[in-house]
Amino acid sequence: MTETPTRRDLLNQIGAIAGGSAVYLAMTSMGFAAESDYAGPVKLEGDPKGASVLILGAGVAGMAAALELRKAGYKVQVLDYNSRAGGRTWTIRGGDTYTELGGETQHCRFAEGLYINPGPWRIPYHHKGMLDYCKRLGVALEPFIQVNHNAYLHSKNAYDGKPQRYREVQADYHGTVAELLAKAVNADKLDDAVSKDDRERLLLSLRSFGALGVDGRYRTGEYASSRRGYAKPPGGGLSAEPESSVISSSSDVLKSGLWRALAVALDYDYQTTLFQPVGGMDMIARAFAREVGDLIRLNSKVTAIRQDETGVTASWCHTVTGEMGQSRADYCLCTIPLSILSQIEMNVGPKLADAIGAVPYAPGMKIGLQFKRRFWEQDEAIYGGISYTDLPISTIGYPATDYFKDGPGVLLGAYPFGPYAYEFTAMTPAERIAKAVEFGAVIHPQYRSEFEHGVAVGWHRVPWSMGCYGQWSSEARAKHYRNLCAMDGRILLAGEHASYIPAWQEGALLSSLDAIGRLHQRVMAR
Amino acid sequence: MTETPTRRDLLNQIGAIAGGSAVYLAMTSMGFAAESDYAGPVKLEGDPKGASVLILGAGVAGMAAALELRKAGYKVQVLDYNSRAGGRTWTIRGGDTYTELGGETQHCRFAEGLYINPGPWRIPYHHKGMLDYCKRLGVALEPFIQVNHNAYLHSKNAYDGKPQRYREVQADYHGTVAELLAKAVNADKLDDAVSKDDRERLLLSLRSFGALGVDGRYRTGEYASSRRGYAKPPGGGLSAEPESSVISSSSDVLKSGLWRALAVALDYDYQTTLFQPVGGMDMIARAFAREVGDLIRLNSKVTAIRQDETGVTASWCHTVTGEMGQSRADYCLCTIPLSILSQIEMNVGPKLADAIGAVPYAPGMKIGLQFKRRFWEQDEAIYGGISYTDLPISTIGYPATDYFKDGPGVLLGAYPFGPYAYEFTAMTPAERIAKAVEFGAVIHPQYRSEFEHGVAVGWHRVPWSMGCYGQWSSEARAKHYRNLCAMDGRILLAGEHASYIPAWQEGALLSSLDAIGRLHQRVMAR
Repeated sequence: MTETPTRRDLLNQIGAIAGGSAVYLAMTSMGFAAESDYAGPVKLEGDPKGASVLILGAGVAGMAAALELRKAGYKVQVLDYNSRAGGRTWTIRGGDTYTELGGETQHCRFAEGLYINPGPWRIPYHHKGMLDYCKRLGVALEPFIQVNHNAYLHSKNAYDGKPQRYREVQADYHGTVAELLAKAVNADKLDDAVSKDDRERLLLSLRSFGALGVDGRYRTGEYASSRRGYAKPPGGGLSAEPESSVISSSSDVLKSGLWRALAVALDYDYQTTLFQPVGGMDMIARAFAREVGDLIRLNSKVTAIRQDETGVTASWCHTVTGEMGQSRADYCLCTIPLSILSQIEMNVGPKLADAIGAVPYAPGMKIGLQFKRRFWEQDEAIYGGISYTDLPISTIGYPATDYFKDGPGVLLGAYPFGPYAYEFTAMTPAERIAKAVEFGAVIHPQYRSEFEHGVAVGWHRVPWSMGCYGQWSSEARAKHYRNLCAMDGRILLAGEHASYIPAWQEGALLSSLDAIGRLHQRVMAR
Repeated sequence: MTETPTRRDLLNQIGAIAGGSAVYLAMTSMGFAAESDYAGPVKLEGDPKGASVLILGAGVAGMAAALELRKAGYKVQVLDYNSRAGGRTWTIRGGDTYTELGGETQHCRFAEGLYINPGPWRIPYHHKGMLDYCKRLGVALEPFIQVNHNAYLHSKNAYDGKPQRYREVQADYHGTVAELLAKAVNADKLDDAVSKDDRERLLLSLRSFGALGVDGRYRTGEYASSRRGYAKPPGGGLSAEPESSVISSSSDVLKSGLWRALAVALDYDYQTTLFQPVGGMDMIARAFAREVGDLIRLNSKVTAIRQDETGVTASWCHTVTGEMGQSRADYCLCTIPLSILSQIEMNVGPKLADAIGAVPYAPGMKIGLQFKRRFWEQDEAIYGGISYTDLPISTIGYPATDYFKDGPGVLLGAYPFGPYAYEFTAMTPAERIAKAVEFGAVIHPQYRSEFEHGVAVGWHRVPWSMGCYGQWSSEARAKHYRNLCAMDGRILLAGEHASYIPAWQEGALLSSLDAIGRLHQRVMAR
């Protein structure tokens, strides 16, 4: 899914508007968390004696359940709206066609080997379930670069709108913080908070952390340049002597607001080492589909779900032919996004029904832009990673694959959440792309001469999810989460929305494994 | 070369012994710097009319010069001591044999595809010369992982000797610094240093940077856990609720000294994105050798270098057959390490002679250890990156390639500089390896059951370099650097020692390109 920049972007917006305390409250209330409690391959022991399960949705949650349930002896069927398996685990390549709500159809023209992942695009090292399934299913992974110290941080209101290198902002912010704290300590202002023994250790650590001189000052010179980069880099032979770059004043650093972006890298979700499937995130979907594709009925829009004393029936309509039909099984695992499920007739109790209606879906948008050449590498030495801006595009993501390659390349040209995502999504795809190029050119002027074409996915116009991911408030989670996950008769829900790792594939996977474990217990207790 | 952990390790040692001001002085005096001033392929225009150059040493400096000088029309010969090209750009694999000073021979038994780079093992994004040559010569690169937030920081004197995760130390150190500074600001202790406008921005930034609550406190809870990791990670379905990990007290954080390691990642040399050649650093040596291997006479130990009015003659001795011979050319580009060159008879002026004698060579050692399985990935979710310890091994480096692979793997099991490197090198290779396993088991108990065999390179016992790299003091650099680089009659020096990027391949390369540019000017001015 379009994931957790959500958190950052939302928090930054909240921070910008409402100040810091609102940020912290929002952060806690969003209930975000990152690691997974995957404990190894699920074990469903005992003979289900021909019990059958109807799975709705062939995303990661649905296909993992199909794989494990069939292995455990269940009869399994899967229905999916799309003409492909994978759901939000999705990659768009040249030749692909996508029609959004409203009827606009895009024909992607990316060159061979280039792609954009409109949904999830990275897998943290602690998403152990996803990594294990990738290994078991033979999905090759490569490092995803999250932080690039040579990428840009940009604010239209800072440094005359000129993008700064991440390394410059980081060094100057650290220098500012370290210098101020050293000053307070040296002036005996913190004697009540820092013991005499700790005082020297703290001062020593601040010099190391902030690149301070022995006098506790952060200043233009060799030490600061060894963090933020040089005006003239060192070389070899004669005339090799480096020249230092000039630091920013602490006031400029603080005023810029660019320090906001530094916190992203500190977040557990974005710590090293992250991975991505070689060739696109849908390599995971394809790998699952190789295992359970024979169980999936594609192009099937679910129109109603009815349970009775002996089973569950889903009515569906073929999205191309209009054919109507029904599928039935003893139990139903429903992984349909709540944004869609809330519109489908289903006879469940009031607790589950209320829970389904209680979770709004986050807006989000991704735009992939193809350029004639990888100018960000060739001109600017940016290999993978992300630039952040307070322009509506929010993010420019550089491909973490095929480094140093000649020929065209595809950037993630926009990845806004919140109001900007709505604004973008309200435009036509062509307008969105034109805007992304216009804004991106502020950071990379090469856009103007190198841009070729793009593709834009606004998640609120994606017909089968109508939003990015389930955005739990802490109030909704306290009131509805357990009801959402609890079995209702013969129906059980799974998906990222039924997890504490919202927006991530790991949440979808773990919710599914948890659900089928409980389903199996129920079946074995019959 | 064994590179700049040098700087860090040395500085840490200096810091531990002499306190912070010594660190800063040492840092500036070591003259370290990182970026390169490579300005694209060298252009040697004009016809050298049959001028010839004898190059001593077939490392990166020597082979780059050979390639460019031949292309420009020079007659080129290269002599090298070793039976392979590459010099310190070196990879040891199963089947390789290495004999050190003192006569100890090691036969490496690593499994197919596994290797250790005793010298350089990474290329920063700003080493533009090396990256350009890799591209031109078709050397495939992959990301090198420097920082791994899930790797360990360890001190025998902290946390009862129990390794801490990098993420835990980083979060707790940031929390400590941010909380203390927020406290000083809130108590109006810094009103002279921070304007009223900046004050609110600073407080807001500290909350974001240090994961502080609205009250300015860093405490155990969801926010801190979203940085340092969880006691029970979040999951899916029922029982998915995460449990927070418990933070360290600021005093424990400061006392531990583990914050020292955090500064490494801030250094320009180690910022993202770093690269390594796929398959081992010597892929670069092999690529150069494909171009200029026909010019290189291997197994040739230079015994004397004499210049006269018409040219330069190097006397050599075949290291296997004992055959003696001489090679002569109009000019000589000498890339032999100063540690060796200072022992070779050579008629140069006193300025160059003094410079050659003025640069001691840094000690350093690397040990590669093969284990039955990649337990660091399978048991501990560590994919690439580095653990740091104050045990004599200093460093454990995890392979940044072949992630998730079954079968054996090779770790960098020790990478000490300074006194520890001397202590290790004084032992036999077998003893060094046994010690590395003993110390490493403190951090990874799996060592005891999983270790198979290893290989140990102590750079002061490497016959052809007798040390790691040229360790310039600022006094020596001020007095001798320009003399070292200046042409002396028909002789010109190059190599990492003739650069402001010591210990790195980029320094060797740029010094070489600078030298041949000046040599060519001289030739064209005839």
